[in-house]
Order: sequence, then C-alpha cells, then structure tokens
Amino acid sequence: MPADKPIVCYLGPETSYTHQAALQAFPAADYEHLPALTIKDVFDMTQSGRATHGVVPFENSTNGSVVFTLDHFADRDGRYGDLSVCAEAYLSVHHCLLGYAPPTDGQAAATAPATAPATGEEEKGVVAVAQPLASLAHVKRVYSHPQAWGQVTRFMRTHLRGIETIDVSSTSRAAALAKADATGTSAAVSSALAAEVQSLEVLARNIEDREDNTTRFFVLRKDACGSELAASPSQVAVDGKQKTKSLVSFTVPHTSPGALADVLDCFRAGGLNLTSINSRPSLQEPFQYVFFVEFEGHRYDDPEGRVKGVLEGIGRVAQSWRWLGSWVNMRA
Amino acid sequence: MPADKPIVCYLGPETSYTHQAALQAFPAADYEHLPALTIKDVFDMTQSGRATHGVVPFENSTNGSVVFTLDHFADRDGRYGDLSVCAEAYLSVHHCLLGYAPPTDGQAAATAPATAPATGEEEKGVVAVAQPLASLAHVKRVYSHPQAWGQVTRFMRTHLRGIETIDVSSTSRAAALAKADATGTSAAVSSALAAEVQSLEVLARNIEDREDNTTRFFVLRKDACGSELAASPSQVAVDGKQKTKSLVSFTVPHTSPGALADVLDCFRAGGLNLTSINSRPSLQEPFQYVFFVEFEGHRYDDPEGRVKGVLEGIGRVAQSWRWLGSWVNMRA
Repeated sequence: MPADKPIVCYLGPETSYTHQAALQAFPAADYEHLPALTIKDVFDMTQSGRATHGVVPFENSTNGSVVFTLDHFADRDGRYGDLSVCAEAYLSVHHCLLGYAPPTDGQAAATAPATAPATGEEEKGVVAVAQPLASLAHVKRVYSHPQAWGQVTRFMRTHLRGIETIDVSSTSRAAALAKADATGTSAAVSSALAAEVQSLEVLARNIEDREDNTTRFFVLRKDACGSELAASPSQVAVDGKQKTKSLVSFTVPHTSPGALADVLDCFRAGGLNLTSINSRPSLQEPFQYVFFVEFEGHRYDDPEGRVKGVLEGIGRVAQSWRWLGSWVNMRA
Repeated sequence: MPADKPIVCYLGPETSYTHQAALQAFPAADYEHLPALTIKDVFDMTQSGRATHGVVPFENSTNGSVVFTLDHFADRDGRYGDLSVCAEAYLSVHHCLLGYAPPTDGQAAATAPATAPATGEEEKGVVAVAQPLASLAHVKRVYSHPQAWGQVTRFMRTHLRGIETIDVSSTSRAAALAKADATGTSAAVSSALAAEVQSLEVLARNIEDREDNTTRFFVLRKDACGSELAASPSQVAVDGKQKTKSLVSFTVPHTSPGALADVLDCFRAGGLNLTSINSRPSLQEPFQYVFFVEFEGHRYDDPEGRVKGVLEGIGRVAQSWRWLGSWVNMRA
C-alpha cells in the first residue's frame, strides 16, 4: 500500500492561477492538491498541519502586492507563528474574457468587433489592446477577482466601458457565476483553463495590459529548517551558487522616529541587498505600520554569518520582528 | 462684483469622504468645490489649471495605502510633472449600512437583530461588532467602494456573510445605487451624510472594524513654491516650530541591487526620519518598483539645508527621482 501523498493546499477553487502555480511547483504525481476558499484558509490549513504546504499569491507584476497575503504574514493575532516561506513560484498570467456566445438572432452584423482606438501606448511590455473574438454587445456584467481588474484596465476601458463589474473571491468562481447566468449576459475575466472547465466561450484572449504580466507565489510550510529546505518542492539543492532570498517583518517604536532608518541600515551594514519593501497598517495605532523587507541571502545557507548578523541587528533596533522564510530565487 | 472663488476639486460625488475632507480644509465660504469622478480626474483637473487645488485620499489607518493615488503619483506617463502635495487632512471615518427599511409584512419578528457572536477581540481600538438597527434579512446585495470593504470586515462577516458585494467607484455612488433599486433589497456601505442626501434608512451605524478608523488625504496643487505654501489652505504659517513632512518617489537601477539601500541611507545620513515607505510596480520591467518615501522636513523651510542635502544625495544614487511635495504635519 503506497504512502499517502503530501497535501498541498492552494487558493482555489480548481483552475485558479494559484492552482496552476501549485501544480507547477508540486507535480500531481507526487502531491495531493487541495483547494482552499480564502488566503486565510491556506494559512490555517498549513498551520494546523492539515496540509504540508500552502500556496498563496504574493504580488503581481502589473498590479502590485496582494494585501490579503501581506496581512496574514503580519499575523497580528499570532495565529501563524510556525509558518514560513520555503519557496517561490512565478506564473505568466494571461487573462481571457469568458462568457456565452453572442445571440445570433438579428445581430449577425455585430459579430465584427469594433476597432479599438489608437492609444499611442507603445512602451516596452505594453501590447495593443486585445480585440474581442466576438461581439460583446450582449455582455451586461463582468465578474472577476479584485486583483484582476488592475491587470486588464485597457481592455475594459476600450471594450466594456461603463459595464457593471462585480468582485468575487476568485477568477475561477467568476467563470462559474458567468456560466450560471442563464440569460447569457454575464461574462468573467478568468483563465483559458476555466473556459474549458466551465464550457464557456473565450470572447477575448490575452486581455492583460502587459504581455509580461506575471504573478509571484509563495509556498508556506510549517516548522521550516535547513534540512527540510534542501528537499524543497522545486527539488533544487541550496548551494553557494544559487541566489537566495529571505523575508522579514518588523515594527518600529513610534516614539523613536529614526528607528525605521536604523532597521533598514542593518541590511546595508551586513551587505545584504534589499529587493522589496512593503508596509501594512499595524492596527495598533493609526498610521503605524508593519514593514516587510525582502533581501538577498538565506538563513540556513549563510556561511559568512551575514544573515545571522543582520537578524541580530534588527532584533536590537526593531520593536518587534520576525523571520518569515528563506528560499531559492526562481527568477533570473 | 466679487472675484471668482478658487476651485477645489475632490474625488466625488458629493457627500464622499473626500468631499468632507475638502470642506474641512477649504471653507465653503472661500472656495468653490467641484466633484471629480475618479482620482485621475482630480489629478487632470489640477494639472490643467481647471482647479487650483485637488483633494485625494492617500491612506486609511485600517486598510492601508490607496494604490490608485500612489499610481498617479508614480506618473509613469509624465502627465503630472507640475503637481505636488501642499497639505494633508485627516478625517475620522464612520461607515454606515444604508438601505430601505425591512418589509413589515409577516416579518415583524425579524426586526430584532441577531446577537453577534463573541469574538474575543478586545485590543485597543477594536470595538464590539456593531448591532444592526433593523433586520437585514431583506438585504440581497451591498454596494461600496473597494477601500471600504477592508474597513468593515467584522460587521460583514457577522451580519452579512455570503451576501453579494458589488464594487463601485465611491461610497456616495453606492448609496445612490442602493436607493435606485426599487425592490428595496440593495444596501450600501456609505456615510451618514449620504443617507440624508439619498433619503435612505441607516440600517446600522459605526460598522467600521476600529473606532480610530481614519483616512488621510493629500491636497495637490500646481507649481508649488515656498511663498505659495505659506498661504496653504490650512492657513498655518510654516515656521521652525511646526513639524513638516515631504514625499519623494524614486526608482533604482535593477542592475545595482544595493541601490535601494543607498537611497534609503541618504535620509539617515541627513538625519531626516522616515515616516512611511510604499512601493508600486514600475511597469517598466516585472518586479521593478517605484518607491515612495515620506520623511520629516520641508523643502522650503530648510534652514540647515538638510532636505536639500538629502535630495542631492538621492539624485546621485537613484535611477530617477522626484520631489512630490512638502507640507505641515496636521497630526500630533
């Protein structure tokens, strides 16, 4: 009798972009994949041990940070003290407009879509606004996830201006809701995979503002340590040649306004490059923040002790702080 | 014939929280107030000179930064080169649930609202979940602005779990849409003022997660300089005793990963405290950012030349940078 496969939970439902990232990082042959309804559920299931790994979106290259994920890393209620990031994954995100085909009665002429106005936008990465594959005149409302709207602004502005948009918990659910509308007048910004699963028409393809639109995901696990990381899901051994990154969160005493600069100076003093900075409200006092700093280096592959030194420095100047994980950089 | 009043545009429509902040900073006796449909419109109207001042939300103490405002400050298309922040304003934000009164036919018993479950949340600033003033059983959907949802999570979870939520461009518009639904089954998360204007019932009051829920607004103007700032809308002269703040944006060369730390070190070297840090995608390359740093000090009230020195330092190490304004701190 084969051993049970490890369980990887992800922000679902099935066919979500996070599901695709989870399948990429954890082959279906070796792992069971379990959808969770919310980012909080992924954190909860991983913390409780129900899943060995959890996959959550962290940031999108067009739309920025996923604040719900940052808020769970802030862990203001102390629920996720055992969780840390052990890997990252990148997924190219191509959105489609899914829906029912336009009605054919008396509207045959409308199937030739209107030409998009010239935008004069020709910077790097910016593509021409996608042309619909069918008339969109029958579309009365569009469902999607809040993060997706910011990635498809030019298509929406050009082809669906003024149409009602409805936020739902995932792009997969958006597709299901569009399918469920028997009037055929609802559409969804979702994935090509969701079109297959829901048997919906792809009314437009690659509607994202930028062709390099990419979402970055974090893999969570419980009680990470050096030996476990060597067997990380990407199966890449941690060695001196690979680039690694780490994430810490911290708060600073607001009676000591120089403290933020002091914490940031720890990274400089240790020669560790910063790769991103985010902040979220601390919810202790208005306009006090939890800061998140990502930097180059690995807590458990640190032969010169630079990460150790930086973390000790942070401990001296921050009000509170926490190491949130170290992993192998998966992007050149 | 009296001279025309200066025009202050704000993120409308009328009765929006931004409108309330604009009225607080610019007395109606002295200024004309003009609503704009989007944050972009406020930037556009101020840049074009149609308005002398523009008021936009910048951050909320519960929900964090307003990314749409940050994205316009990023000014990736170079449209707002003449705009800067000349003042800030704070507004306590108390959300209400507005709608139609519950139907009375056969539902009299339902007007006694259910008791909220104990949450065990008793930290500072966190209040008990608001109790509805009437049954909410008739509410089928709720309209609001995306920023508002993150401020009323506990009320929504407790009293309207699973109800459809629809994003619209402002809390004022949410109230108008709830009013327009003749079935009486739509509600809005909006202000008490909007209830008066729309003649809607207040179904619940003070439904925000935290009693210290506060939004901070920025006042934009064109071609700011020292002399103009002395006549800033708050009518507070800039002198050595008042605390001041400034905002800069910058990008760093991604081939030089130490550059972010180098820029941040400029503030430390100049002895200027950092008060907030934000980042947004640069939209030049995936996972390259525009950073926003707010710090203590005023470009035009800088007797020791510290701000000048810091800005010169940033100019040496950043790839690009821009001063986005200096103003008097309006919060203790």
